[in-house]
Amino acid sequence: MSSEPPIITLTTDFGYQDYYVSALKANILKINRGVLMVDVSHNIPAQDIMAGAWVVKNSAFLYPEGTIHLCVIDPGVGTDRKPLVAKISGQLFVGPDNGFFSLVADGQKICAREITNSAYMEHSISDTFHGRDIFAPVAAHLSRGVEMEEFGPEIEDVKTYRWATPIHDKEGVQGWVVHIDTYGNLITNIPASLLSKNTGKSLKIYAGTTKLDRVHATYGQVQSGEAVAIIGSTGMLEISVNQGSAEQLLNVHKGAPVSVVFQK
Amino acid sequence: MSSEPPIITLTTDFGYQDYYVSALKANILKINRGVLMVDVSHNIPAQDIMAGAWVVKNSAFLYPEGTIHLCVIDPGVGTDRKPLVAKISGQLFVGPDNGFFSLVADGQKICAREITNSAYMEHSISDTFHGRDIFAPVAAHLSRGVEMEEFGPEIEDVKTYRWATPIHDKEGVQGWVVHIDTYGNLITNIPASLLSKNTGKSLKIYAGTTKLDRVHATYGQVQSGEAVAIIGSTGMLEISVNQGSAEQLLNVHKGAPVSVVFQK
Amino acid sequence: MSSEPPIITLTTDFGYQDYYVSALKANILKINRGVLMVDVSHNIPAQDIMAGAWVVKNSAFLYPEGTIHLCVIDPGVGTDRKPLVAKISGQLFVGPDNGFFSLVADGQKICAREITNSAYMEHSISDTFHGRDIFAPVAAHLSRGVEMEEFGPEIEDVKTYRWATPIHDKEGVQGWVVHIDTYGNLITNIPASLLSKNTGKSLKIYAGTTKLDRVHATYGQVQSGEAVAIIGSTGMLEISVNQGSAEQLLNVHKGAPVSVVFQK
Repeated sequence: MSSEPPIITLTTDFGYQDYYVSALKANILKINRGVLMVDVSHNIPAQDIMAGAWVVKNSAFLYPEGTIHLCVIDPGVGTDRKPLVAKISGQLFVGPDNGFFSLVADGQKICAREITNSAYMEHSISDTFHGRDIFAPVAAHLSRGVEMEEFGPEIEDVKTYRWATPIHDKEGVQGWVVHIDTYGNLITNIPASLLSKNTGKSLKIYAGTTKLDRVHATYGQVQSGEAVAIIGSTGMLEISVNQGSAEQLLNVHKGAPVSVVFQK
Repeated sequence: MSSEPPIITLTTDFGYQDYYVSALKANILKINRGVLMVDVSHNIPAQDIMAGAWVVKNSAFLYPEGTIHLCVIDPGVGTDRKPLVAKISGQLFVGPDNGFFSLVADGQKICAREITNSAYMEHSISDTFHGRDIFAPVAAHLSRGVEMEEFGPEIEDVKTYRWATPIHDKEGVQGWVVHIDTYGNLITNIPASLLSKNTGKSLKIYAGTTKLDRVHATYGQVQSGEAVAIIGSTGMLEISVNQGSAEQLLNVHKGAPVSVVFQK
Repeated sequence: MSSEPPIITLTTDFGYQDYYVSALKANILKINRGVLMVDVSHNIPAQDIMAGAWVVKNSAFLYPEGTIHLCVIDPGVGTDRKPLVAKISGQLFVGPDNGFFSLVADGQKICAREITNSAYMEHSISDTFHGRDIFAPVAAHLSRGVEMEEFGPEIEDVKTYRWATPIHDKEGVQGWVVHIDTYGNLITNIPASLLSKNTGKSLKIYAGTTKLDRVHATYGQVQSGEAVAIIGSTGMLEISVNQGSAEQLLNVHKGAPVSVVFQK
C-alpha cells in the first residue's frame, strides 16, 4: 500500500442518533485502521433509494480514483436482494443491489460482483443489519486491496432503476422537481443543454403558481425575496428565492412539475 | 507507538450546530494530532444518559481493543460528580461518573480512576464545559499512551444505574420499549433468549393496540405497511412496520410496555 | 511536510443531507489525500453569517497553529463579493469576504488575500457553488504548503461587521441574547468582566419576565427546573434552567434584551 490512505465514504439513512453509523465505522476500523473514512450523509430520508443515489451521483465521481463508497439504504435487508461490490467509472461501491447503483451510474457501465464469500463477512449475520455484518467488512477488505473478483461471482443483471427524464420538443420542456436542498432550492431534472439549444428564444418557466421569464446567472441578480431561475451546481435548472426558500415561498414540493415554454 | 493510529470516538448531546463539538476536537488535536477521531453521535437527546449509553453499549465493543471512547452527556457538570477514565472489556472510556458507564458496562467489570491530576487538564477549568477543559485533554493524553494510573486514584464505587430487565415466567414476558430508531422501529428490552426457550409454543405479542402472533425473520416477510415482530440487530425483540414507522403507525412510544404471552 | 498531518476544519450551512459537504471533501482529497478533515458544523442556519461566525470564533483559536478553517456560508455566491484566504492569530481561513471573518477576528488583526489565481481553482467555476469550485481547492492547496501570497493580491479592506456590544454604566448593563444552544441556554453578549467590576454590589438580572438576583457558579446550585444565571464557557453571562431549556421555559429568544441592574 502506498503512503496515501485508502478512502471509504459513508452514505446511509441511519440518522445521527443511533448506534448504526458507529457500528459500521467500528467494523471498518477493526479490519483496516489505516483507512480514511468520510461521512457523506447519514440523513438520507429513511429507505429513500433515489434521494440517496442523487447525493452519491453528484459527489462520488469527484473523489480520487479507487475511492470506496459504502452506501447502505437498504429497505430490502433480509430479503433475496443481493449484496454487491461494483465499479463505475473508476470508483468502487459497496451496498445492496436495490436499484441504487444503477441510479448512481446513470447510464455509465457498471461492473458488479455479488458478495457471496463469507470469509469477508462477520461470522454471524443478522437479518436486519447487513451494513454492519456484510457491507462494512467488505468495504474494509476492499480498502486493504482485496480484488473485486474475490467477493463472489459477476452479476450481469444489476437491478436497474432510471431517473425520469424531461419530455421536450420544439415548443418547450416538461420536467420535475427531483430534489429540494437545505436552502429550499427546487432542483429540476431539466439540464441546461435543453435550454441552451434555445438561447435565441425568450422563454417562460412555470413552477407552481409562479412564472419566470428568463434564466439568470446568480441569485443576486434579483432582489432579496424574489424568485429566480438559474442553472445550479449540478448543471440542472433550479428555481430559487434569493436569500429565501423557494419551497416555502412558492409552496412547490418534490415531484412537482416545472414547465419551460419557448417563445418564437 | 505503532503505525496504527490510536482511535478516539466521540459521543455527546452537544448537537450539530454549536461550537462545543469543535472545541472537543480542537483540544484533542492540540495534544495528539496523530489520532483518528470518529464521530459516533452528537445528537443524543439533551442530558439523556440512558439514550447515550444505549448507543455506546451497542457499538463500543465492536471497535479495536484499546479504542478510547469520549462520552460527554453531563447534566451534572460543575457539581461534585467525578470525572473518570474507565476500562471495560478492553475498551477505554472518558467522561463524567453519572451512571453512564455502568449502563455501558451492563454487568461487565469496570476498572475506573477518578481524574484528579491537573497536569492532564486545561490550565483554566470552566464550571460548565468539562468536555473541553478536562475530558478531551484526558482522552488525548490517553491516546498518547499515558497510563490510566497517572490520571488519579482508583474509584471503587462507580455510580451505578441498571437497565430495566423484563419480568418473565412460564406464562410470558413483560418488557418495555427502550429505544426507537430513525426508522420508527420499537426496540424492546426482551432478549431473543427469553423467546427461544419457548420456540415450541405459539405466542402472542401485544404492543399498543396491536397483536402479533409470531416472530418473523425479516421485515420483508410481511406486506409493506404491515406490523412485524423480529429479533433486531441488538438481539432484542423489535416491533417494526415493513417500509414504514411502527412508532407512527402503531402510536407506541418509548417506555411503552410490550407483552409476550406463550400459548400451550 | 512533517509527519503531522495538516488540518482542515469545515463549517457550512449545507446541512447533512445534500451532496454539498461531500463535494467539498472530495475536492479537498483530490488535491491532498494526507489532510485531516474535521467537521465543525454543517447545520449553521441557512445564510446566517453571524451564527456561523459565532461557532468559529469560539473554537477556531483552540486548534493547533496553522490549522486551516474552511468556512462557507455564502449568501452572496456569484456576486462580486471576493473569495479570500486570511490569517488571524496564527490560524488560516478560507471563504467568501462577506463580513464573516471580521466577526471571527473580533478585533484581532486580519491579513487577507483575494483569491484570483485560477491555477488553484477548479477548471470550470459554477455561479452557485464556489465552496466546491474555489474554496475547497484553495484550502487543499494551502494544506500542501502553498503560501498565501500565491493566491492573489492583498486585501486592505476586508468587509467588516461588528458584534453588538452591551451598553453599560455605573447603574448596570444592557445586553442581548446572541446565541441559544442545543440545551436552550440563553447566551448573552455580556462579558463576566462587566459584572465582576461590581462584585461588591448585589445585582438583579432581567430576562423576559424573569428576575434573578445573583450569578451562580454552576447549574446544579439551583433546583432542577429553576432558572439560573452563570458565566458560561465563552466567558459570557448565560441564563439557563437546570436540566431544562431556558428558551422554552422562559420563552426568551435570540435577540431578546437582558438587563443587569447593580444595587448599592
